[in-house]
Amino acid sequence: MSWVSVTQPNGFLLCFVSVFMVVYLGNCVNGIPVVDLTHVQDSNTIFWPGNPQFNFTILYRGLTDGGYWYESNAIQTPEHGGTHVDAPSHFAKDKLRIDQIPMSKLCGPGVIINVKEKARANPDYRVQVSDLKVWEDKYGRIPDGAVVLMNSGWSDKYPNKTLTFGTESVNDPSTFHFPGWHEDAADWLVKNRNVNVVGVDTPSNDYGQSTTFDAHVILATANINGLENVANLDNIPEAGSTIYVAVINLQDGSGGPARVFATNLDNSVNAASFSTSFKWVLALCILLTLG
Amino acid sequence: MSWVSVTQPNGFLLCFVSVFMVVYLGNCVNGIPVVDLTHVQDSNTIFWPGNPQFNFTILYRGLTDGGYWYESNAIQTPEHGGTHVDAPSHFAKDKLRIDQIPMSKLCGPGVIINVKEKARANPDYRVQVSDLKVWEDKYGRIPDGAVVLMNSGWSDKYPNKTLTFGTESVNDPSTFHFPGWHEDAADWLVKNRNVNVVGVDTPSNDYGQSTTFDAHVILATANINGLENVANLDNIPEAGSTIYVAVINLQDGSGGPARVFATNLDNSVNAASFSTSFKWVLALCILLTLG
Ligand SMILES: [Zn+2]
Ligand SMILES: [Zn+2]
Repeated sequence: MSWVSVTQPNGFLLCFVSVFMVVYLGNCVNGIPVVDLTHVQDSNTIFWPGNPQFNFTILYRGLTDGGYWYESNAIQTPEHGGTHVDAPSHFAKDKLRIDQIPMSKLCGPGVIINVKEKARANPDYRVQVSDLKVWEDKYGRIPDGAVVLMNSGWSDKYPNKTLTFGTESVNDPSTFHFPGWHEDAADWLVKNRNVNVVGVDTPSNDYGQSTTFDAHVILATANINGLENVANLDNIPEAGSTIYVAVINLQDGSGGPARVFATNLDNSVNAASFSTSFKWVLALCILLTLG
Repeated sequence: MSWVSVTQPNGFLLCFVSVFMVVYLGNCVNGIPVVDLTHVQDSNTIFWPGNPQFNFTILYRGLTDGGYWYESNAIQTPEHGGTHVDAPSHFAKDKLRIDQIPMSKLCGPGVIINVKEKARANPDYRVQVSDLKVWEDKYGRIPDGAVVLMNSGWSDKYPNKTLTFGTESVNDPSTFHFPGWHEDAADWLVKNRNVNVVGVDTPSNDYGQSTTFDAHVILATANINGLENVANLDNIPEAGSTIYVAVINLQDGSGGPARVFATNLDNSVNAASFSTSFKWVLALCILLTLG
């Protein structure tokens, strides 16, 4: 049993093993902490003007002759409304349709770009390359496979159309004012990083005043998935989560409603927070052992 | 630097730290391994007879006046078809509708009950309590929050209706022959374990010959979510995965299409495989240190 005696070297290692396991693995064993990032789909769901209406039809609701309760409904919905994915095919010919995107490209480390103050001051704000650099200065290089989302504070306005589109004329896109991605930032991500999904908490990756939808075209052409009307981004950390963008598996779809959620909020199955845990526990244990 | 010298005690601990980290955390750092468990949704999607048809409408597909490519579609679909969730409200009055089920109840440790041989011999096979006991003897107690799925080998038949329903009369449920859950097994799970989702790779949690849908009623009454027409269960381990059942967030829904997938296939963020990794690495390191 000599190896459990608390000489300095063994003390350090025992400390490291036990504290690291508690800190790093603590949250894994009991359930999965999940934050839902999805607005509800219903007749208030926000679609771009020109889309047909969302429809919910009750097929049956009540007791049956068999003596059991039964409910069943059907829906009609355009692909692009509420919390939903833009497949690359939405804005680029011959690029991936929904059913051609593997699930492994619909998840990844969450990278939340907080531009809330800028968007509050200017509803036409577009995420700049410099906003991405600010994130990287804080949290390190944007990881491969990242799900990069703008948090403009806009999801609080959802599903109020006037507030979300930033106009009283909710059927006239030329009057829209809401933030999105600058084409330079989309272009920088495509050329310099290897991300899976780029999205926003507003109705479009391009800002409200766009007429050429440059961010859409740049991302679609690079076969990168879009995500719009994300909810609850204030409830997850700017780095260290894993985000899943679970879109319905729609044959030939150019988009579709998605259930979007974040996990690993505290334990962090990813490189960035792994190394953070590692460093903190190392420092703590060196301190405890030497002190 | 004396603490890195390979005396027996330090050697053991160093070995344990390093091997455990490689084995347990190995898969975490580079991307997320994911297995998709979802059939594609299209006009071949299997619905229970009596449902309205699935419809896919192309709203626009081509070059726009703006010079960019644009595709957009709309769908019509009953809730209960293809890979989809049964909310408790589907078969029990005043139980949870889709939008009332928190995402944390739509995921959990995967528990795959393999009855392929029995179902091949008898298409009316129903999962028994004894099948659950066989799983527990191999892998330990069914964990809290589990997603418990029957693998009957049936998903290979999808979307062929004759093979899936086990009849030429695909509109007459009295002729259906496919496996499902025995009401005793559903009842045992409700009373003795704390699971989140119970599902099948066939069109119904109740077997084809059921007229009273006992498994549905038992699970729904206990506010447990159902899952039907799951795909690719042969591609994940019987224990040790985490399964996400990401249903669209449909207001008032009694069900809905879901993107279902498994992660943590090798590294295992859950108690069962944590303790398995732990034991193996412990044994290996004791052997290496003493040997
Ligand atoms: Zn869209
Ligand atoms: Zn169903």
